Amino acid sequence: MFKNYLGKYENELLESVIPFWENHCIDKEFGGYFTSLDRDGSVYDSTKYMWMQWRIVYMFGELYNSEYSRGEWLGIAQYGFDFLRKNGRDKDGRYYFAINRQGKPAIAPYNIYSECFAAMGGAAMYSCTKTELYKEAALDAMNNYIKRIDNPKGQWDKSLPGKQRYQALGHYMMLANLGLTMKDFLGTDEYDHDIESAIEIVLSKFWNESLGVMFENILPDGGFDLDSCDGRMLNPGHVLEAMWFLLKYFDDYSRDEAKIEKVAMIIKKTLEFGWDKTHGGIYYFMDALHKPHLELQWDMKLWWVHCEAILACLYAYKLTGDQEFYDWFEKIHAWTWAHFPDSEYGEWYGYLNRQGEPTHALKGGKWKTFFHLPRCLLYATRLMKQMEK
Amino acid sequence: MFKNYLGKYENELLESVIPFWENHCIDKEFGGYFTSLDRDGSVYDSTKYMWMQWRIVYMFGELYNSEYSRGEWLGIAQYGFDFLRKNGRDKDGRYYFAINRQGKPAIAPYNIYSECFAAMGGAAMYSCTKTELYKEAALDAMNNYIKRIDNPKGQWDKSLPGKQRYQALGHYMMLANLGLTMKDFLGTDEYDHDIESAIEIVLSKFWNESLGVMFENILPDGGFDLDSCDGRMLNPGHVLEAMWFLLKYFDDYSRDEAKIEKVAMIIKKTLEFGWDKTHGGIYYFMDALHKPHLELQWDMKLWWVHCEAILACLYAYKLTGDQEFYDWFEKIHAWTWAHFPDSEYGEWYGYLNRQGEPTHALKGGKWKTFFHLPRCLLYATRLMKQMEK
Repeated sequence: MFKNYLGKYENELLESVIPFWENHCIDKEFGGYFTSLDRDGSVYDSTKYMWMQWRIVYMFGELYNSEYSRGEWLGIAQYGFDFLRKNGRDKDGRYYFAINRQGKPAIAPYNIYSECFAAMGGAAMYSCTKTELYKEAALDAMNNYIKRIDNPKGQWDKSLPGKQRYQALGHYMMLANLGLTMKDFLGTDEYDHDIESAIEIVLSKFWNESLGVMFENILPDGGFDLDSCDGRMLNPGHVLEAMWFLLKYFDDYSRDEAKIEKVAMIIKKTLEFGWDKTHGGIYYFMDALHKPHLELQWDMKLWWVHCEAILACLYAYKLTGDQEFYDWFEKIHAWTWAHFPDSEYGEWYGYLNRQGEPTHALKGGKWKTFFHLPRCLLYATRLMKQMEK
Repeated sequence: MFKNYLGKYENELLESVIPFWENHCIDKEFGGYFTSLDRDGSVYDSTKYMWMQWRIVYMFGELYNSEYSRGEWLGIAQYGFDFLRKNGRDKDGRYYFAINRQGKPAIAPYNIYSECFAAMGGAAMYSCTKTELYKEAALDAMNNYIKRIDNPKGQWDKSLPGKQRYQALGHYMMLANLGLTMKDFLGTDEYDHDIESAIEIVLSKFWNESLGVMFENILPDGGFDLDSCDGRMLNPGHVLEAMWFLLKYFDDYSRDEAKIEKVAMIIKKTLEFGWDKTHGGIYYFMDALHKPHLELQWDMKLWWVHCEAILACLYAYKLTGDQEFYDWFEKIHAWTWAHFPDSEYGEWYGYLNRQGEPTHALKGGKWKTFFHLPRCLLYATRLMKQMEK
């Protein structure tokens, strides 16, 4: 069933994506990585964005740990880890949003997702090496994340009392994912309660039954705000990513048929709502009532959304056996592989217009690095192998 | 030469654009304006963004003052002025970035362009009424702008020492424009030196002769930074807008043939560089070396860019008589009028994809209000009448 796909995904991971980053991302002079890589791998900006940096540490660690392991991948992960632990934090231990090529602080630590990816990077390194230093780094970042959750932007928060506050899907999704990563890599049960409560909140509060959509922002008391752009915002890629995190947790640790059924239903509805019936592909942002979207790029097709959609379909198919998910997988696979891969220079384009044509030649940038695509390819091969058995 | 165009521009201003905003933007219940207006004028978000609010005050003031004057326009401008003076400022007199529908502070005063548009709004009101209150409001905002120039983002600035600092074209462009507005509306010569020095810096430092482009950001010492995305950033719409501000100043106050010639050359080069040879229209953002752009929406076609391009061509044609500017005017006019106007509900779409299709149905939003389009139509009719004589 997946035999033809499996070879394609494995080959893309091992022969195209990994070599591209191995060959181009390492800053041999100053440490850390280049992530602003043009179509051919040349560097077009040397700023070191913390999310992008730590995701490379995480991903090479995860790959070293995988069935495809190669010794040099640990070295690449460690090379970034050392640079980032040394240069990445302010005096309070918070990770900057960006440092410059030499490691000097460039953009203030206003974004706590930097901590998330640092925690994931440290945890992956620990699982490769069982060295306490990495575990400490992971827990340190994780605890800083939790400590900052109630005031994530700190002094850089521009919201005043007249601005509606929301609970954000991204926050709960990340909490579930981080807890799961710590569980996988550090073997700790310490965050089980966080995972369980995040799952509960996501499934019961963010899902709107009558509209058939999962919202990005809900009111503090759990209701929906249909009168504002922020309140109506949908992010189908986020939802699909969050849903496979949940399915992975149910699959690996704690099977719950009722919840699996609900997640499967949410994936189907999200794909139906988010799929572009004219040009194919999944929209980046949407408005729940189809009113104008604040984001100019709402109708673009992004690589990561399609990577997460593929994993959501494969997990849902594995856990439910529902043929509809296989059909969705084939449909998304076909559109994705017809539009994103760059057959000449390897790796994938990140940004397509609504019609499916690349608007940017870049392979990496401020928001694209060695993360969603290799993770998708790695996890997809695993799921396919499990389902072939 | 412009006879057929003139009627079209006048009619669009008086029968389509002004009525759309008169009918839909006034918040009769709480004061101020709605600017998030959907295709048919219905309100899809009630946040009151300071730039958008003050621009309406300015524009209705300017129109009341114009050859098309109608009495009710002063009332509309005043209605917003009163609400914004009462609710728009913090205890230090800085204008918030946004307030909510009721007037409660929503987003902190992190952006000093709020002050610019407040200054323009107050000045326009003064020129309508000759009432000191408005002059005070204008000078107050203007002086706050100047006071905050060296640290414009204040506590919300996320830049740290490792981030390259730049001088921004927007800043000098705004200084020239503000000085000119104060001169026009308050009759003051106080800012003549600011205007002259801004013109000097823009023409000598931001223009790169060998690449034939005007940069958005230059190094503090005046050089160009070709190694980073920020350093290579171009904004053709900004350049064209800045250039007609300069031509207007030369035309109204201080004719300087050498500078007019340089500005005309910059307009030509900017149009050649910024025009999309495949689909027509002018790009939103560009990279001076055609490397990947940080902004996902770089290739979109925005209404304001085309409005400013039309004025740049008309001013340049008026001041130089060079046929090339008439030809550019005709070409830009044709593309603009074929793609932006909404013949069914009036007003113009703001955001088109590269191919020229609307991606958003909105007529107003967080960044589109009653400003660029009516100003373009009003000034264009004036320039056309002057040239018909």
